[in-house]
Amino acid sequence: MQPEVKIEPERGFPPGVAYIDGDFCDISEARISILDFGFLHSDATYDVVHVWRRRFFRLDRHLDRFLDNVAKLNLALPFDRETPAETLKECVRRSGHDDAYVEMICTRGTAPGYSRDPREAVNGFIAFAIPFSWVANEEQRRLGLNLFISTVNRIPSRSVDPTIKNYHWLDFIKGTFEAYEHHAETVVLVDEDANITEGPGFNLFAVTGGRVTTPGQGTLKGITRATTLELCAELGIGADECPLAADRLGAADEAFIISTAGGIMAVTRIDGIPLGDGKPGPVTARFTDLYWQKHDDPDWTTPVD
Amino acid sequence: MQPEVKIEPERGFPPGVAYIDGDFCDISEARISILDFGFLHSDATYDVVHVWRRRFFRLDRHLDRFLDNVAKLNLALPFDRETPAETLKECVRRSGHDDAYVEMICTRGTAPGYSRDPREAVNGFIAFAIPFSWVANEEQRRLGLNLFISTVNRIPSRSVDPTIKNYHWLDFIKGTFEAYEHHAETVVLVDEDANITEGPGFNLFAVTGGRVTTPGQGTLKGITRATTLELCAELGIGADECPLAADRLGAADEAFIISTAGGIMAVTRIDGIPLGDGKPGPVTARFTDLYWQKHDDPDWTTPVD
Repeated sequence: MQPEVKIEPERGFPPGVAYIDGDFCDISEARISILDFGFLHSDATYDVVHVWRRRFFRLDRHLDRFLDNVAKLNLALPFDRETPAETLKECVRRSGHDDAYVEMICTRGTAPGYSRDPREAVNGFIAFAIPFSWVANEEQRRLGLNLFISTVNRIPSRSVDPTIKNYHWLDFIKGTFEAYEHHAETVVLVDEDANITEGPGFNLFAVTGGRVTTPGQGTLKGITRATTLELCAELGIGADECPLAADRLGAADEAFIISTAGGIMAVTRIDGIPLGDGKPGPVTARFTDLYWQKHDDPDWTTPVD
Repeated sequence: MQPEVKIEPERGFPPGVAYIDGDFCDISEARISILDFGFLHSDATYDVVHVWRRRFFRLDRHLDRFLDNVAKLNLALPFDRETPAETLKECVRRSGHDDAYVEMICTRGTAPGYSRDPREAVNGFIAFAIPFSWVANEEQRRLGLNLFISTVNRIPSRSVDPTIKNYHWLDFIKGTFEAYEHHAETVVLVDEDANITEGPGFNLFAVTGGRVTTPGQGTLKGITRATTLELCAELGIGADECPLAADRLGAADEAFIISTAGGIMAVTRIDGIPLGDGKPGPVTARFTDLYWQKHDDPDWTTPVD
């Protein structure tokens, strides 16, 4: 008997191109087997690099991290370093996007006979390019974000190494729903000692007395985070990678979140309470300006064509 | 430019039938969009029920838990309780399997315009039936398993509620690779206090002095776990749900793991060291016998047809 209720989700696919199972296709047609352990066990790693005005930003760094993480999870891809780089470029070319959000994924795959032994699985490589997207929308970027500090703990390093970029996001999702209940726009999770860790897809920096602080442990070592630390040196701003107590964040002069999906974005309220004067601050603006200037620098970028 | 190396995994699909996007299809054709947040954020919950001799075992319990977990994750499915039940039955009927492993999944899906806001996503329902599978193979079930106790911590409840069945398995995968390095067959993870939690897809019981103990916190409250506790009452065996120190497991008389995928399976070695006399024990055998007897009981089973 056919169930009465059919679920045919209205899928709002962004325009884009994917590479999966050895072929390029429209993003709306890119599908993975429901038996792939990348889905059924979230046994996968990924990386996201962005393209701005047809130039990849720090492509080498993202590829290095991705391939390191593939190895750390005992995954293997049967190609050299050039193949994923060329595949990403081809996805962007075929998409026609000048500014793009480009993701590469390695999944455990499935094993012949559907063995549960991950050593027997044939690992898969997926890539896609869709329009550049922002963690924060235009108004949020202009006014700064209202950030909720959740009591949900980020999955600790003793369970899953947060420096291996992964899809274990149920902690972030729970925190995000909490943030919405508190009329905030996004969320950051804490560790078991109530220190800030990271948010869904971003790291955080606080600015106090002209110096910046970012959590040193328990978070992804984001490429944009590393970039921001490099910008500190160029701007002559001191930086500390150390614990950042959640209950001290409200005392900072400024704060900003950073992500490949949007760069540097000001936080102007913590749990609804204005940070400093409640406006995006001057130090955040200096970082933002220099960050986007770097997108023309051939040392930091790789042309798509 | 087309990359030179094509990856076309040799997919060893088991025979089976899936229900996805409102239609039934062969399991080998069942695919989910790579943009579904069930994949990209592992934002999904699932349940597994088994069919033995064309009867579902404790189907109501599994459906109850699944629908509870859907609600707990702020997911929603546009149907009543009968629809998933009928869909699962139809998957089994179409598969032709007398003994089946039957999974139901609810994923976050995607949102129109590919919004990052989970509240805007259209949630999806997937189901599939494949041949009944066992956590342990035939030889392992006969001789008992060699279980490795990993120092990897199961993702704690403060991060992700383990009673909401989820695909966050990278901790299990890491532990599984450790187990293989130690020539063990499977793994159990500990919590931060070095108490046993659970393994990949199973709960654990220890037998000491005629009583059984199973971890009371930090694990999935498995249906087979609940079933085993009910069997305790019937067998007149005392049961404790309480912390089970990892370093005490080796002193137990017997141990067994339990899962929908295989029922009750003896553990006879811990990290290679024989438990008791190193053979499946008499208490484990009593549970196993009664467990399989219950598969004919109309109170515990639901016919497929």
